[in-house]
Amino acid sequence: MEYAAIHHQPFSTDAYSYDGRTVHIKIRTKKGDADHIRFIWGDPYEYNDGKWSANEQPMRKIAATEMHDYWFAEVVPPFRRLQYAFVVTDDHEDIFFGSSGVCPYNEKTLETIHYYFKFPFVHEADTFQAPEWVKSTVWYQIFPERFANGREDLSPKNALPWGSKDPDVNDFFGGDLQGIVDKLDYLEDLGVNGIYLTPIFSAPSNHKYDTLDYFSIDPHFGDPELFRTLVSQLHQRGMRIMLDAVFNHIGSASPQWQDVVKNGDQSRYKDWFHIHSFPVTDDNYDRFAFTADMPKLNTANPEVQKYLLDIALYWIREFDIDGWRLDVANEVDHVFWKTFRQAVSTEKPDVYILGEIWHSAEPWLRGDEFHAAMNYPFTEPMIEYFADQTISASRMAHRVNAHLMNGMKQANEVMFNLLDSHDTKRLLTRCRNDEKKARALLAFMFAQTGSPCIYYGTEIGLNGENDPLCRKCMVWEKEKQNQDMLQFMKRLIALRKQENTLLTEGHLEWNLLDDKNDFISFSRTLDEKILIYFFNQGNVVQHVSLRELNIDRNKKICDAW
Amino acid sequence: MEYAAIHHQPFSTDAYSYDGRTVHIKIRTKKGDADHIRFIWGDPYEYNDGKWSANEQPMRKIAATEMHDYWFAEVVPPFRRLQYAFVVTDDHEDIFFGSSGVCPYNEKTLETIHYYFKFPFVHEADTFQAPEWVKSTVWYQIFPERFANGREDLSPKNALPWGSKDPDVNDFFGGDLQGIVDKLDYLEDLGVNGIYLTPIFSAPSNHKYDTLDYFSIDPHFGDPELFRTLVSQLHQRGMRIMLDAVFNHIGSASPQWQDVVKNGDQSRYKDWFHIHSFPVTDDNYDRFAFTADMPKLNTANPEVQKYLLDIALYWIREFDIDGWRLDVANEVDHVFWKTFRQAVSTEKPDVYILGEIWHSAEPWLRGDEFHAAMNYPFTEPMIEYFADQTISASRMAHRVNAHLMNGMKQANEVMFNLLDSHDTKRLLTRCRNDEKKARALLAFMFAQTGSPCIYYGTEIGLNGENDPLCRKCMVWEKEKQNQDMLQFMKRLIALRKQENTLLTEGHLEWNLLDDKNDFISFSRTLDEKILIYFFNQGNVVQHVSLRELNIDRNKKICDAW
Repeated sequence: MEYAAIHHQPFSTDAYSYDGRTVHIKIRTKKGDADHIRFIWGDPYEYNDGKWSANEQPMRKIAATEMHDYWFAEVVPPFRRLQYAFVVTDDHEDIFFGSSGVCPYNEKTLETIHYYFKFPFVHEADTFQAPEWVKSTVWYQIFPERFANGREDLSPKNALPWGSKDPDVNDFFGGDLQGIVDKLDYLEDLGVNGIYLTPIFSAPSNHKYDTLDYFSIDPHFGDPELFRTLVSQLHQRGMRIMLDAVFNHIGSASPQWQDVVKNGDQSRYKDWFHIHSFPVTDDNYDRFAFTADMPKLNTANPEVQKYLLDIALYWIREFDIDGWRLDVANEVDHVFWKTFRQAVSTEKPDVYILGEIWHSAEPWLRGDEFHAAMNYPFTEPMIEYFADQTISASRMAHRVNAHLMNGMKQANEVMFNLLDSHDTKRLLTRCRNDEKKARALLAFMFAQTGSPCIYYGTEIGLNGENDPLCRKCMVWEKEKQNQDMLQFMKRLIALRKQENTLLTEGHLEWNLLDDKNDFISFSRTLDEKILIYFFNQGNVVQHVSLRELNIDRNKKICDAW
Repeated sequence: MEYAAIHHQPFSTDAYSYDGRTVHIKIRTKKGDADHIRFIWGDPYEYNDGKWSANEQPMRKIAATEMHDYWFAEVVPPFRRLQYAFVVTDDHEDIFFGSSGVCPYNEKTLETIHYYFKFPFVHEADTFQAPEWVKSTVWYQIFPERFANGREDLSPKNALPWGSKDPDVNDFFGGDLQGIVDKLDYLEDLGVNGIYLTPIFSAPSNHKYDTLDYFSIDPHFGDPELFRTLVSQLHQRGMRIMLDAVFNHIGSASPQWQDVVKNGDQSRYKDWFHIHSFPVTDDNYDRFAFTADMPKLNTANPEVQKYLLDIALYWIREFDIDGWRLDVANEVDHVFWKTFRQAVSTEKPDVYILGEIWHSAEPWLRGDEFHAAMNYPFTEPMIEYFADQTISASRMAHRVNAHLMNGMKQANEVMFNLLDSHDTKRLLTRCRNDEKKARALLAFMFAQTGSPCIYYGTEIGLNGENDPLCRKCMVWEKEKQNQDMLQFMKRLIALRKQENTLLTEGHLEWNLLDDKNDFISFSRTLDEKILIYFFNQGNVVQHVSLRELNIDRNKKICDAW
């Protein structure tokens, strides 16, 4: 047994409260090393005749990667206190694994109480909880300048005719909020029930990530009344709306930054930023990346905190929005996000808080900051396998497994899954315009836990390279839309909604990872129901006999697709 | 190379801001596996000719255990943003280790940006910081009922003559605050400069962990004026004072609990507790352990939060105390402790917040809750090696190493180190009254990072089994005190204070772990200065030649002891 590879981190996604009562426990061993693992647990204060009262239950192997096996147990400690350890068994030994690492499995070890891990008390207050509605949401991301132009009169003077050319970085085409209102039937018919809008507040650029005024709707997009109409019509249709909060930085055109430019160290806003010397030049202050027109806000300044929190609450209180997507969330301090979470959740408890984090987002997903992150660490292995064909099926599955094992179950269930966005190549282009691959990817993503998001236009076959080409105008002429793709997406969304609980909560099992033939199969299982998926990315037609699937005789089998 | 054993957890004590600018990075490999490790890092947004600009620096092996080697690097990212990965080398391969685990070390991997770990921004607000004064503090723990009786008139009616017998659970001997004031010369002469008092608020028991009224000094201990005198005299002598806050539970004699007992579900305090049904019996509510007279407080209730925070601030504001030791801190929710930390640190920024946590305290030591925990995970291997002789020297050293590697450097530096307390056997008794062993343990603890604490009486040879026998009356007759031990402790404390910076911040290196002869040597190094320690627990006299120590010729050598 490879002792050095055994890993369990207490007080982490390896040991967490699932629902305020139930504790989930995971442990990792070297692949193939352990035959079985017993979970030893009890109340730390419960003794019988001077001996600690311990229970024992088998753990279940729930996932594997190239290198590791992951084992799982769940318990409901009667007094909400838990003391625990593991007994790992292979074909020639048992070892005890606890807070002092590997110990010989014997009476002396078992009686040494400080060798056990602790979960001192299961608190509801410390439990990661997310809005329930997210679990049954299929998202649709809209880049408003390019979705639909409903009010020509609002369009910028230099707006180009809709779809007349591929967009350049600084082009305008006149998309607006009325355009979205006009297309609500379309969206409802498609089946999506959550709309995520990239920024809509006043800003000079077409993408509006360089905010000028967080309290106003950009005049080319509409006005407060129009936005109120949009929200209320969405809500009437049972759809949710999420806005984009750009709190890491502000636009250089904002009055705050302009005041600093003008007044230097005499500016009352000089501590709103991270300025290294005065007067400000192009590079003597912290910026988003190295972008001069996006000066980074100093979120440790209480004035800035108040300013941003007021914004966050204003759009909830006055317009009843359902979610905040937080731009460049990983570069803002945790102290601010904790305050933000508390303020927002107090104002409206079921607001969804989604951070733009491209990497593992564990520290933001402990229950007191975000509900989810943009799930790029899930996007990447999918794309690398299906689209780029740079990794094998098993490598993809193993990376998906590792990523899932890295999160709490209830957090994975509300992650924001996506295949592309305004920040990436479009899916179809990433698939080198191979529509079959794009469909496979969409079907695959829709089969996994987490709430899936479609980037506007994917459903009608829009393609495009990286920014600015991934921000093309939506195509509304039916004859120019890929109607087959649209039908496919409707079916996919309908299936997702029909089997939503299973696809959110069900256990994932990889049944077949045939790297040679690029043929994979996995199942999602919840209670008595199983969905079995097959993806054949190889060149050979694959035949699967129902008999091989070992389905119980008393099961009803049907073709879900 | 054992890939499955390579471990680095981003956003943890493996990757943290040391001082708001410098990032510390650790990675763990299987022992002996890696010849060297290179740390690859850069700013995530810095590109040259479309290629990410990465720097490279060697990592340093800083610790080992039976199973693992630990490697360390520190960097100051110029724009406070960090993207990084590791290249691990053994005698026949290089591998890349990043956010997707082990990858082949080649151009394609190096250019795949999402394979890197991120430290998105180094924020001062997210940096663990502790009061500077703790680093030069030697603590002295006092159990006030047993330290000194300075005011016979305050003693409980049933108080026994001082030291007339070994204490039973419910005995009183009349120790009080005046007794401590009277002994300040003694304490100053001993050399300690931080006093930790177990609870002093009104409570029926002798230990006072069953609080009746958090706003009053127990009448048998004194009154507010006397306490104010104590604090001010301590401060005049450059000594600090820490009180014990019992916030997990309250005493059953408290008005709040008594109201619940009387009024049941009509009590206005019914939501202050975790009560399962009314009327309350002996076991239908959450208690500390299973102790009926210590009902657990519901710290998720805003009224309770306000009540406890008012207490915390009252004793700081009105009496200028320097620290709060938090009883059973691990069973209270994190949400409460974060609020507590914020309130206390705002009131007086250099208050030391110490949690009673017997196990790994990592989640409480992330910078927004406590500064330290009672460092029992360090106590245990020391005691098991020196006193119990149940583990080998190398096992002890490896457990100490693993524990140190589990923490941030700046947190380890202010940990509250102890060998015994009112909750354990006394040190001398644990050493089976072998005074040499006790001295060795004290010398060993004083040689390690963290602020050491002496339990009252240890310095004069007090012994005692577990509670109640570890709470004997302090002996004040000189002839009954172990004067040799007292002199030893004074020297030890003096050396600690003299070499304080080195002993707090210096690198620990184990030079010799001779399990056969029970002979160990380690050094603490800071800049040009090295302290070398030898501990011979074996039966054979050991000779060490200076030549064997490979000390540079130009070094000045002196005997520090």
